Amino acid sequence: MAAFDKIEGLSDDLKLVDVYVDEYLRDESGHTALRSVLNTITTGGGKKVRPLVLLLSGRFGPKWPKCRDQLCKMGATVEMIHTASLIHDDIVDDSPLRRGRPTVQSKFGKEMAVYAGDFVLSRIVFYLFKEASIEAGMLLAKTVESMCYGEIGQYAHAYDTKVTVEDYLSNIFGKTASLFVAACGIGAMESGCGEKTSMILRQVGEHIGYLFQLRDDLLNIISTGDREGKPVHSDFINGTYTLPILHALHHPSGHRLREVIHTIGSGAAVSDCIKEEIQDILNSSRGIEFTRETIRCHAEQAGELLSSLPEGPARQGFYEILDRLTAD
Amino acid sequence: MAAFDKIEGLSDDLKLVDVYVDEYLRDESGHTALRSVLNTITTGGGKKVRPLVLLLSGRFGPKWPKCRDQLCKMGATVEMIHTASLIHDDIVDDSPLRRGRPTVQSKFGKEMAVYAGDFVLSRIVFYLFKEASIEAGMLLAKTVESMCYGEIGQYAHAYDTKVTVEDYLSNIFGKTASLFVAACGIGAMESGCGEKTSMILRQVGEHIGYLFQLRDDLLNIISTGDREGKPVHSDFINGTYTLPILHALHHPSGHRLREVIHTIGSGAAVSDCIKEEIQDILNSSRGIEFTRETIRCHAEQAGELLSSLPEGPARQGFYEILDRLTAD
Repeated sequence: MAAFDKIEGLSDDLKLVDVYVDEYLRDESGHTALRSVLNTITTGGGKKVRPLVLLLSGRFGPKWPKCRDQLCKMGATVEMIHTASLIHDDIVDDSPLRRGRPTVQSKFGKEMAVYAGDFVLSRIVFYLFKEASIEAGMLLAKTVESMCYGEIGQYAHAYDTKVTVEDYLSNIFGKTASLFVAACGIGAMESGCGEKTSMILRQVGEHIGYLFQLRDDLLNIISTGDREGKPVHSDFINGTYTLPILHALHHPSGHRLREVIHTIGSGAAVSDCIKEEIQDILNSSRGIEFTRETIRCHAEQAGELLSSLPEGPARQGFYEILDRLTAD
Repeated sequence: MAAFDKIEGLSDDLKLVDVYVDEYLRDESGHTALRSVLNTITTGGGKKVRPLVLLLSGRFGPKWPKCRDQLCKMGATVEMIHTASLIHDDIVDDSPLRRGRPTVQSKFGKEMAVYAGDFVLSRIVFYLFKEASIEAGMLLAKTVESMCYGEIGQYAHAYDTKVTVEDYLSNIFGKTASLFVAACGIGAMESGCGEKTSMILRQVGEHIGYLFQLRDDLLNIISTGDREGKPVHSDFINGTYTLPILHALHHPSGHRLREVIHTIGSGAAVSDCIKEEIQDILNSSRGIEFTRETIRCHAEQAGELLSSLPEGPARQGFYEILDRLTAD
């Protein structure tokens, strides 16, 4: 994230996060198969948003900048939790691509994806015991638990047209927001923030997490990812009904969408004609506008919370994240 | 394990292990799907051999019996690591049954199996941070890493007729023996054993782990599990060439087995006629006898190590385990 360069030392910190990720994932087993998987993972890019919010949160406490190295270590474990969850999510989604590159399961098989994910988890736990406080270790364990709840909740509601907005929000809290909350909380904890600042940062993390996932879900509906320039709709096809769809389902014209769902059945490919029908329903129910409003609402609340924190580059960094996540 | 009743307090300790497993896996999320999975897991039986060797090892140190409760807690985490690994192994094996009951993935889908396994892992980590020493936490994280290496190694060598006995032994060390080593090591550690006793117990654990897996692999070849009373040979069909098969492959008549493997291809069903051919090859190469000898050899070495430990019910318990694992 080049534009964060203006925050002094931040890009160095993000580089150090990468160094620790590489160190924590180092493999001495000599298994060429595992080495290939780890190369795929570590060179896979990713925006490191979770370490970023952790590092920024870590600039609000009195222990900053003494805690700098520890923040980078914790940033690495948070990024690795995200990586492990992506590897395991891809098994479930049968996704061929992630960040434009082949997924571990599509390239190396689901066997490798199961154990590569578990391997990453084992390394996280080892380094948490080695480097982190008991408090941070317990918090991250609880976060992984929440992430499982979110994924299980989403799976349990797959193809369920009766899923409520509350169910959906609860699932995206677990899947995504919980790790942002933990990242901000650990940044605050490691830098010695007081309870009030720490709570504000955790709440900011929660809003960022929600709007991050809401935006992701929206892009799945409005972005034109396939060759014909039509929306991918992979969430819809997989039976994950995200906010725009749920809004449409609860709209007076919701019966039209239920009919479409009934017609295509579960897991089937969706024709361009049906994609146009879905788009038409979403337009008339204003599901996309409603989702954009919800995203703006989270960004506004996060901004308001941030305004009570001391001015400076760290706060500016959070505003920058909010701007980017609400830009399109 | 009823015959262990003669060791005073041991069956109570094993019951307390179950109590802790239930407590550690308690789910307050209200997800009915996850609750059903957890019920399947916790009522699934299992012989609790890993907690058993941990509890027995914990009787050799000066902190016994003060450390009793802590041993049961650690026994619970060790059993849960085993459970999580079974849930994830079953995704890879596509096994319909485990311990005669439907597996999590066959009953609830692989989505649920991925996250149920991760959920169990998150609970283990939480309670390790809450209850265990840093040393024990790091040891168990390293053990999970070894287990991943073992599984990855096995997968990397699937259908490979050039796999060596050393590769095989290295994989079963990771898959199985490493957790037995850790269980004995933690029992010794928590009860305050000196380095010498601790090392002996870890070595005993290693031999038990090897013979446990060797016996399991042998049973897959000689037991008559299907309706026609023919050997299941599921390892062979899945391309996992265990010791009896490897011995036959390296025998002067190994070409016959390679021809069979070449004929049936990977993942195919194996006819009764081919099963008889395999049995015939195993008989002529004495692969089964060689495996039995290897098992006996591990049992003898474990017995010899045990003879240097103080006499008493705990040592008797280990001898009893060895007797059972070499009985058939």
